[in-house]
Amino acid sequence: MIHRQYVFAFEEGDGKNKMLLGGKGANLCEMTRIGLNVPPGFVISTEACLAYLGHNRLPEHLMDEVRRHMAAVEKKTGKVFGDTENPLLVSVRSGSAMSMPGMMDTILNLGLNERTLQGLIRLTGNPRFAYDAYRRFIQLYGKIALGVADEHFDKAMEALKQRVGAAQDVNLTAEQLKELADQFAAIVQRETGSPFPEDPYQQLEIAIGAVFRSWNGKRAVDYRRQFKITKEMANGTAVNIVAMVFGNMGNDSGTGVGFTRNPGTGENITYGEYLVNAQGEDVVAGIRTPKPIAEMATEMPELHRQLIELRDRLEAHYREVQDFEFTIERGTLYCLQTRNGKMNARATVVTSVEMANSGLLSRDEALLRVNPQLLEQLMVPQLAPTGHHEALAQGLPASPGAASGKIVFDADTAEARGNAGERIILVREETKPEDIHGFFAAQGILTSRGGKTSHAAVVARGMGKPCVSGCAAIVIDHHARRACIGGVGLAEGDVITIDGSTGNVYAGQIPTKEPEFFPELTRLLTWADDVARLKVRANADTPAAAAKARKYGARGIGLTRTERMFNDSDRIPIVQEMILADTLVKRQAALDRLLPIQRADFHAIFREMSGLPVTVRLLDPPLHEFLPGEKQLQFDLDRLRASGNPAELARHEAMLERVRQLAEVNPMLGHRGVRLGLTNPEIYSMQIRAILEAAAECVKEGVPVEPEIMVPQVAAVEELARVKKQVEKIHREVEAATGVTVDYHFGTMMEVVRACLRAEDMASLAEFFSFGTNDLTQATFSFSREDAENKFLPFYVEQGLLPENPFEALDIKGVGRLMTMAVEWGRAARPELQVGICGEHGGHPESIALCHRIGLDYVSCSTPRVPIARLAAAQIRLNEIATGSPRSDA
Amino acid sequence: MIHRQYVFAFEEGDGKNKMLLGGKGANLCEMTRIGLNVPPGFVISTEACLAYLGHNRLPEHLMDEVRRHMAAVEKKTGKVFGDTENPLLVSVRSGSAMSMPGMMDTILNLGLNERTLQGLIRLTGNPRFAYDAYRRFIQLYGKIALGVADEHFDKAMEALKQRVGAAQDVNLTAEQLKELADQFAAIVQRETGSPFPEDPYQQLEIAIGAVFRSWNGKRAVDYRRQFKITKEMANGTAVNIVAMVFGNMGNDSGTGVGFTRNPGTGENITYGEYLVNAQGEDVVAGIRTPKPIAEMATEMPELHRQLIELRDRLEAHYREVQDFEFTIERGTLYCLQTRNGKMNARATVVTSVEMANSGLLSRDEALLRVNPQLLEQLMVPQLAPTGHHEALAQGLPASPGAASGKIVFDADTAEARGNAGERIILVREETKPEDIHGFFAAQGILTSRGGKTSHAAVVARGMGKPCVSGCAAIVIDHHARRACIGGVGLAEGDVITIDGSTGNVYAGQIPTKEPEFFPELTRLLTWADDVARLKVRANADTPAAAAKARKYGARGIGLTRTERMFNDSDRIPIVQEMILADTLVKRQAALDRLLPIQRADFHAIFREMSGLPVTVRLLDPPLHEFLPGEKQLQFDLDRLRASGNPAELARHEAMLERVRQLAEVNPMLGHRGVRLGLTNPEIYSMQIRAILEAAAECVKEGVPVEPEIMVPQVAAVEELARVKKQVEKIHREVEAATGVTVDYHFGTMMEVVRACLRAEDMASLAEFFSFGTNDLTQATFSFSREDAENKFLPFYVEQGLLPENPFEALDIKGVGRLMTMAVEWGRAARPELQVGICGEHGGHPESIALCHRIGLDYVSCSTPRVPIARLAAAQIRLNEIATGSPRSDA
Repeated sequence: MIHRQYVFAFEEGDGKNKMLLGGKGANLCEMTRIGLNVPPGFVISTEACLAYLGHNRLPEHLMDEVRRHMAAVEKKTGKVFGDTENPLLVSVRSGSAMSMPGMMDTILNLGLNERTLQGLIRLTGNPRFAYDAYRRFIQLYGKIALGVADEHFDKAMEALKQRVGAAQDVNLTAEQLKELADQFAAIVQRETGSPFPEDPYQQLEIAIGAVFRSWNGKRAVDYRRQFKITKEMANGTAVNIVAMVFGNMGNDSGTGVGFTRNPGTGENITYGEYLVNAQGEDVVAGIRTPKPIAEMATEMPELHRQLIELRDRLEAHYREVQDFEFTIERGTLYCLQTRNGKMNARATVVTSVEMANSGLLSRDEALLRVNPQLLEQLMVPQLAPTGHHEALAQGLPASPGAASGKIVFDADTAEARGNAGERIILVREETKPEDIHGFFAAQGILTSRGGKTSHAAVVARGMGKPCVSGCAAIVIDHHARRACIGGVGLAEGDVITIDGSTGNVYAGQIPTKEPEFFPELTRLLTWADDVARLKVRANADTPAAAAKARKYGARGIGLTRTERMFNDSDRIPIVQEMILADTLVKRQAALDRLLPIQRADFHAIFREMSGLPVTVRLLDPPLHEFLPGEKQLQFDLDRLRASGNPAELARHEAMLERVRQLAEVNPMLGHRGVRLGLTNPEIYSMQIRAILEAAAECVKEGVPVEPEIMVPQVAAVEELARVKKQVEKIHREVEAATGVTVDYHFGTMMEVVRACLRAEDMASLAEFFSFGTNDLTQATFSFSREDAENKFLPFYVEQGLLPENPFEALDIKGVGRLMTMAVEWGRAARPELQVGICGEHGGHPESIALCHRIGLDYVSCSTPRVPIARLAAAQIRLNEIATGSPRSDA
Repeated sequence: MIHRQYVFAFEEGDGKNKMLLGGKGANLCEMTRIGLNVPPGFVISTEACLAYLGHNRLPEHLMDEVRRHMAAVEKKTGKVFGDTENPLLVSVRSGSAMSMPGMMDTILNLGLNERTLQGLIRLTGNPRFAYDAYRRFIQLYGKIALGVADEHFDKAMEALKQRVGAAQDVNLTAEQLKELADQFAAIVQRETGSPFPEDPYQQLEIAIGAVFRSWNGKRAVDYRRQFKITKEMANGTAVNIVAMVFGNMGNDSGTGVGFTRNPGTGENITYGEYLVNAQGEDVVAGIRTPKPIAEMATEMPELHRQLIELRDRLEAHYREVQDFEFTIERGTLYCLQTRNGKMNARATVVTSVEMANSGLLSRDEALLRVNPQLLEQLMVPQLAPTGHHEALAQGLPASPGAASGKIVFDADTAEARGNAGERIILVREETKPEDIHGFFAAQGILTSRGGKTSHAAVVARGMGKPCVSGCAAIVIDHHARRACIGGVGLAEGDVITIDGSTGNVYAGQIPTKEPEFFPELTRLLTWADDVARLKVRANADTPAAAAKARKYGARGIGLTRTERMFNDSDRIPIVQEMILADTLVKRQAALDRLLPIQRADFHAIFREMSGLPVTVRLLDPPLHEFLPGEKQLQFDLDRLRASGNPAELARHEAMLERVRQLAEVNPMLGHRGVRLGLTNPEIYSMQIRAILEAAAECVKEGVPVEPEIMVPQVAAVEELARVKKQVEKIHREVEAATGVTVDYHFGTMMEVVRACLRAEDMASLAEFFSFGTNDLTQATFSFSREDAENKFLPFYVEQGLLPENPFEALDIKGVGRLMTMAVEWGRAARPELQVGICGEHGGHPESIALCHRIGLDYVSCSTPRVPIARLAAAQIRLNEIATGSPRSDA
């Protein structure tokens, strides 16, 4: 009779068959098969586990198979299981198809007993190590294989330490550990009623059964329920039995960890640390300091050569930077484990590009390897890499970027000191809506409570300010105006630095550096542009911002907000004069003064972006945004009444009256955008003229320009029709006056729900659509962003009422569905319609994926997010090629 | 050779062929053919006109045909054209297929000359009448047929009047009129170079040609262009030639006007006035006072019999109340003209129902005859029909209803006097957004400028207050605080009454009466309910309102706003206590006090509506709406600081702090509805418990109840899921505690765009949808209603940027499209889903039509609009049956 094969040597196991061999087992087989020197061993399959659980005993002949494989391991290692001279010891660990961390501990050094222990002592020349390993083995085996509670062993350990006056485990001598091992064995006898099993094969058989049983233990069953792991995903656990190797067997032995490349910089040299004649525990215990791997070349040249060979083999096979562990036993280098290396953003980009350059990866693979969100780290101020700084404490990386400033414990003080010009970090247990003015004044926010969706995190991300949240190592004494951070006492006004990308908090000011492009990043993004279908533009309101956008690789400006220009300090008085004008003549006079200023702005932006499109949005906010608040005016008036000059007093009185006239219940839904443009057509006329005259100047100068005039807040096609007529009239006038031909495009923001619902009408007049997803999200949810992020959105995200803050991640199911229809209807009316999105969603990878799927032509985002968007646009295109046609979840 | 027939006697004309005979001609043929005694005559067809215009001369043989028909008319009347004893006179008027009012004047008394005039004098015994007719004929004929300018005749008339000292035309004697006729004839000779044509047939031929030419005159061409009248709609004009009849030929002659029924009350008796031995001009000139038709029965019994016969014939044929003119010539009653009678709302309802009862109409026809908007007149306060009141002036009926109050000329005074308890009518040239506080304080609004879409009109309609706009007969002297209205001087504080349903303005206080149902209205609405598919519910927040809703025929309550109950003066202190509570315990204590109050409210409403569904909306507005405004609090605090007690001061300080915490940038999109319900679940718990406990009480009392719990402002299904769990838990508790089974339904408002976009998700949990089209319109347009109606909506409607105010007439193309999709998606997930609409749109007929087309189950509106909605729902169903399947414009 032929038996089913239950046991597979690493050489014969199928490295892909995780269902049969478990994840770890398959991986060890894979490593072995590609020629890595893995310590010999074998896997007992999950089928054996299921057979065991079905009959409550090991399958017949299983132990025969095990013995045959143990014999093979003995042959490969030259050691013998149970031998007193050169004993083979093994590790036993479970491993199912799905990783289930912490499900079961690994049993190390199985095969130790009073006799084999002597061999270990001889071989390592280190009785303390051997007795420590022995007492650990008894405890772990007692617990896992025999079910003896840990507390018995712990109690004995504590009693011993107290008796001999040892503060820590490492203070115990070999003799004391030997005594402890004896006590542990006695405990096992007392608790199980049998002596500790001395026979190695008995040890092994009991251990295998224990691993199998653990599959149906409470811990594993709960885990599978929690993470919804079904039988189709993992069914039973395999058992991995691996020969133990020891790095503490003399000066031709050692241990270490390595990265195939530098995970901090991406530099292409092996990076890591090692120790001669040591085990991993020595490093963990801090007894000895490891050396950098570079030194190995001189200290152990042959082993260093083997290590480099291992590294090359790892990268050639896995095609990713590997984080690996190794042990050298008497001149033989073993690779114990390898996994993909965790790297920072820069290193990820550098290594991916280099691997593509060297042919290890295709460019597409390199593009897919870098998480676009990771680039955010590179685009915000970062801690300068000058010297090593010890963090005081670590919290959650809640909003990226680094900032330094003086500690302040409340929002009022933050506002007062911030307004006085000081750089402030607001430090609180948690923030509340009433702290909002403190956010405005602060460089960054640090809280001791709350997660990544807490009020502080959500609001800071919204403002683009660094935030570390949930930093539990902070205790604030509001009365004394002091805080203890990570055990260090600091007073209000002391300077700290926070890094919202890592969650670290540092004492003092650490220099930060502005983001900078490095060659590999530029290269990667160029590849991305070659692949992507979706183009990326930037939002920019000034010539300087336009220059920056171009540097970041923007293929045009998707949004120029003309009101930002209105707000400059040299212009706001003219704007206010325009608003306060009580006759059309006076209003026109103010507008006539604004015209050359706006024209000069546009001219400079057009020159910066020459050859690329620039979308200018006509005035959007309500007029009252350009006037001081009612409270401020009241205050100024009281002051002026006491002392001021009559002209100023009169001006302020007029201003107050106008502010009251213009006051709105819901300014977000009020008299703004095209509504304002239609009731006060002279304002749009000035802006349209400024755009077209600036373009005409460029044409005369031979600078190629692509101006696009965009109307905000459009709800009805009749609104668009009227502005279009106005544009056409002024266009004729400008061409007639300048004698040059000025090309332009006319389009509309899609930020009002009704515009989306009438997209076919809109497309009949608009050559392009630009979704304003911020306003569209507000209207779709009936959420005022300012109110929502302050009052209830953090609660909503925490409670799972919404998966994410829809102002950060575009709401695919709602807003996305509306956009999908609008694009479809719009293109039906005008097939060549250009469609884009402007606003922060344009820099969010998942939102970009939606934009790609529904067929947008471009996304426009803030300049720092342009690189993220470029990479994300390439990745979604590559995924689309891989999976077939694009689809929409909306 | 057979000639085409150009001339048709009334007996032979096809009464339907308006293209050939013109509207008037066809109508005269129709009247003749149904046996009405129309004065004999004939029609010259539009084909003759086209032939004339083509060849610039009358078709050959046309005048032969005319002569033959004149001969027939002579035979029928016993008169002879051109005869000096018993002369036949005719009227000549144009008439095309489309009514073109004012295109050409009618020529009366054609056939008059120096000789036939003598016959007329003899027959009427009234030389003054005859000469007056003669001089009028010369002037009109001179102008129309011969092209002599009016001014020549007017000048002569003025000169004569001055010479003889006559103030008005009626003061002229027969002799003086004879002299004038001679002068007029001389003017014609002077201006045309030929004598006035004496030959009647010459008069006729020239007149016919003039009528034909008028078709291509500037006035007619402009008119057709203006009203887009194409050749397919009207091509050429016909000429109607009708024998003149005279009511002033003795005591067996007379003239009058009649309605087949009373147009003011609908009473089924002939209504009208007549004069013996008189022409219509006598009535117009005010020389004699006409008598009511009832008197005719005794004065002229035989003619009265003929009149009743005429009336019966008219109604039997036209099946509508007719407004007709008649003349009696020597004992023969002629019907000159008839048309559908214009009636007020009540009369329209009464006559339609009576006609249906008598079998003259089907019920469906009766239902279709009444314009639902007309019922609005019956549902608002109306002027009591006590005595006749002369209007001072008339403006536009801009917002229905009548109101009396003291004149006030500015909003501030209106507010001051209104708050002091006076009843105020705000009178202004026009209103502006800054007058809004005056609207709140006033009973009604009267303006001298602006149309039905002016600021005053739009805002007043939104508030449901009467408004008369554009009343040009008002001159305001702001300095003197006086106004002249229709020539009457009035001072501020004087009482006036305005009727927004008619546009009339009266001096003094005229009693108004509350709307009342009369049997015919009740009957009509019962028929409507039998026909309609769409059910009508009312919005009602109190037991009294529920009772009224039931009286108005509501088939349930579609919206009970629980916050209205919170606002009652005995409750608001508890609500404020709840809001100010700084611990959950204190908040719960306040809610525990509110629970029995709300439960009692619901219990009473459920009892009123027993057997019908009552939809209760959980708390919707933000909490700050229940606190005083910041300014008010500041004011109170200043007062309290000076004098008040410490407890009140502390309470106000706490209130001010809370008001500031709760302040929102856009409250419309803020922390309200389900957002508030989820962050403060204890409030909804109290309300849910109150609803279910009240229902349980009813069950115990044997009162059938159908409570429906509705969640406001839902944007995501997760919100709904959480409230549903809360409801289910409390429902189990209430059933356990009371021991009775309480049935209820659970549903959601659809007032957030995203809810519509995820309708299938919503329907997975909601048993019913109720579209909140006010909020949905705000979100779809990004228009804040308060701001929009104040700042730009009137401008938008005036300028045609929007066809109507979308808060009055549901926006079919935008909001309607969204609703259409939401219903489709919702029903796909839950076929038995009940869908309704609540809000003012539910009472607007066109909006109701949309609701019907997209398959809603009910509309809910304010109680006064329930009858309108019931009738509109029936009409749309009848139209649907008539035209086939329902369709959606959205």
